[in-house]
Amino acid sequence: MKNILILGAGMSTRTLISYLLNNAKDNNWRVIVADANKLLAQEAISNSEFGNAISLDIFNEQDREKHIMKSEIVISMLPPSMHHIIAKDCIKYKKNLVTASYVSKEMSILDNDAKNAGVLFLNEIGLDPGIDHMSAMKVINEIKDQGGKILSFKSFCGGLVHPDHDDNPWNYKFTWNPRNVVLAGQGTAQYKKNGKYKYIPYSKLFERIESMNILDAGEFEAYANRDSLAYIKSYGIENIDTMLRGTLRKKGFCKSWNIFVKLGMTEDSYLIKDSYNMTCREFTNLFFPYNNKLTVEEKFCDYLDLSIDSDEFRKVNWLGLFSKKNIQIDEATPARILQKILEDKWMLKSGEKDMVVMQHQFEYQIKSSVKKLNSSLIVYGDNQIDTAMAKTVGLPVAIAVKLILNGVIKSIGVKIPVTKDIYNPVLDELSENRINFIEEDL
Amino acid sequence: MKNILILGAGMSTRTLISYLLNNAKDNNWRVIVADANKLLAQEAISNSEFGNAISLDIFNEQDREKHIMKSEIVISMLPPSMHHIIAKDCIKYKKNLVTASYVSKEMSILDNDAKNAGVLFLNEIGLDPGIDHMSAMKVINEIKDQGGKILSFKSFCGGLVHPDHDDNPWNYKFTWNPRNVVLAGQGTAQYKKNGKYKYIPYSKLFERIESMNILDAGEFEAYANRDSLAYIKSYGIENIDTMLRGTLRKKGFCKSWNIFVKLGMTEDSYLIKDSYNMTCREFTNLFFPYNNKLTVEEKFCDYLDLSIDSDEFRKVNWLGLFSKKNIQIDEATPARILQKILEDKWMLKSGEKDMVVMQHQFEYQIKSSVKKLNSSLIVYGDNQIDTAMAKTVGLPVAIAVKLILNGVIKSIGVKIPVTKDIYNPVLDELSENRINFIEEDL
Repeated sequence: MKNILILGAGMSTRTLISYLLNNAKDNNWRVIVADANKLLAQEAISNSEFGNAISLDIFNEQDREKHIMKSEIVISMLPPSMHHIIAKDCIKYKKNLVTASYVSKEMSILDNDAKNAGVLFLNEIGLDPGIDHMSAMKVINEIKDQGGKILSFKSFCGGLVHPDHDDNPWNYKFTWNPRNVVLAGQGTAQYKKNGKYKYIPYSKLFERIESMNILDAGEFEAYANRDSLAYIKSYGIENIDTMLRGTLRKKGFCKSWNIFVKLGMTEDSYLIKDSYNMTCREFTNLFFPYNNKLTVEEKFCDYLDLSIDSDEFRKVNWLGLFSKKNIQIDEATPARILQKILEDKWMLKSGEKDMVVMQHQFEYQIKSSVKKLNSSLIVYGDNQIDTAMAKTVGLPVAIAVKLILNGVIKSIGVKIPVTKDIYNPVLDELSENRINFIEEDL
Repeated sequence: MKNILILGAGMSTRTLISYLLNNAKDNNWRVIVADANKLLAQEAISNSEFGNAISLDIFNEQDREKHIMKSEIVISMLPPSMHHIIAKDCIKYKKNLVTASYVSKEMSILDNDAKNAGVLFLNEIGLDPGIDHMSAMKVINEIKDQGGKILSFKSFCGGLVHPDHDDNPWNYKFTWNPRNVVLAGQGTAQYKKNGKYKYIPYSKLFERIESMNILDAGEFEAYANRDSLAYIKSYGIENIDTMLRGTLRKKGFCKSWNIFVKLGMTEDSYLIKDSYNMTCREFTNLFFPYNNKLTVEEKFCDYLDLSIDSDEFRKVNWLGLFSKKNIQIDEATPARILQKILEDKWMLKSGEKDMVVMQHQFEYQIKSSVKKLNSSLIVYGDNQIDTAMAKTVGLPVAIAVKLILNGVIKSIGVKIPVTKDIYNPVLDELSENRINFIEEDL
């Protein structure tokens, strides 16, 4: 019997855990789900005879090592900053490790140690990063195999609300970690366009967007991700002219989100004074120049050069930013307060479902002809457990774990899924689970 | 004989060192100037019989402690991040310490240790912070002594070019650390206006400026400093309605500086690809959306919504941002590249002098009448050694050192000069050195 140790049992792990439990009998697996909150782990394994729920404090070295030692493979669904702690144990006890997170510096320097231990640390095998890499590399390698050259690659992904529940003026609800949504894009976005490097500071990020239609799902827009350039090398497309990765929203979102950026409401570096008894209206007023003749609404329009009929005013007003509701969080940053205001309005209600949308846009040259190809994915959530996000993050992880345990994936070292040995079998099985890209020659 | 140990012999320390050497004979002092570069230390003491120049690697603990042990008082003119290393030695060997820098967290937690050792760590006794605190506290305490209440305090300071050499379109030249000028204001400015807390994100900082005339020196403008709120407590004006500290520039500067902020050229968090062989023009082009139909000048005007006749275009063009000159620094951040471009144009030339300008604006109430008072300082540089900056930073430090050694200042612990025992004698002697505030009742 092989033990699979899953660290972290948050909402996003439910599909992953179900898949492994469903495949446990045939493969002679035992699925051990560990979380600081044992109830959460118990909920995740439900009543499966193939699962164990345990309580684990990840900073308790002895306890942590005891469980890692006894497992065949470890899946870390912990916050990304904690993966390298687990990774060091996995080297010590020669265990394979799988995560859905970006390869951190701490992780990448373990490549040699992992190789020496003969184990695989497979990262970035969730949705984005994950399915994006695999589906893109499949197309890129197919084009290369035909003797083609990739000229341009743009890739966009977003977690959004299901069309049936897309009923607010923002056309957006939280389907993933709200804090990450509020802080998204801070820093400078780096990309390449027609051979030129381009840099977008945060203050311009939500203005310099790309627009597109995706299949029959309507109009979308995307803002650039922080570092599109790093993947030029990992994808093996060093001579590419255009490389851009971005985050999708429904059309019209970015222009209004930019209001929060302009006001400074997404800042997370300092604490607002006396926030507990402040109203939403008073919070909004903090960011305008002092003026005791205008209302907060008038200051908003004046400062941002908007009319009261504008889309931006309407959306911000709908969120309650001019309301007299108390904030009731103390010692909070602007970003934390904004998050709370948004959560009141943007949380999925009981029965509401989510949607994941991805589109790759390729331009490539074969002999003297330049061709365009879009490859798009839409996944809908089934319910509030098997959300589109939980499925698209969890299934690739689960499938990869199965393929590693069954000896189909044989790599060692610190890897991301950009090679055929990994992406082919994973994409095949995703397809069996109705996660399919639709290709359109343009 | 008392040894005074000065750590750091950069340009800003010349007036300080001269003052101490000139007073050495009467006070039976020996002035020991230590720098990593011994030549710099030698230059600083010139041929004075009262000075010693030594070479000192500040990270060589044994060497450092040897010199601190033998001294009566230590002046640290090192970069601020190094003061706490020196401070710990000063506790060990029970030595007084003087710096012109802001009290860091590391420094502030040494308060009890300094008191137990019976020594004074006097910080923020340069220009800004330093002369600003002392001159403000003198007026604040005079108003309080008359039974008045401070309603509003605004304080502005800037290092600028002498009017005789104010001959470029920006009305600005570097008279202090250029890197600090390029990075100034990043984060969020916090202040209080008419009882309301106000927060300005960096992207709006150079738009939300205050304008003023200062004595006969013309029109100025100021952008808010990062944290004006911290001094409400240290100044003992807890019930004040308006509190703002800012940085002065000549009128028209901020609007054009804001262009660099908008473009992202002051970012210091990532490296520009292939910067070495890039021209200034190519650098500028990195920050615009790709467009192969417009010139870089046209993109600039288009993206920033400016005309080619605008002040902003004219000033940026004068700096050479559209020129084909090579940048020639590799692995550089945008801020580092911008600094290099600015240094080519904004360095003081041989024979050119600087100027320091400060203005405090008070509003206070005595009985039922509200009064306004401005207190302003203008100091001109004498030459390129005794610059206005070197004088206004160095003299208060030097005077404080004399007063500590002579037993006039008797405080112990970690202090800033906001109490009468310190600011009265220092301001008196600054006045003898022609550093005088001019008060105007408005």
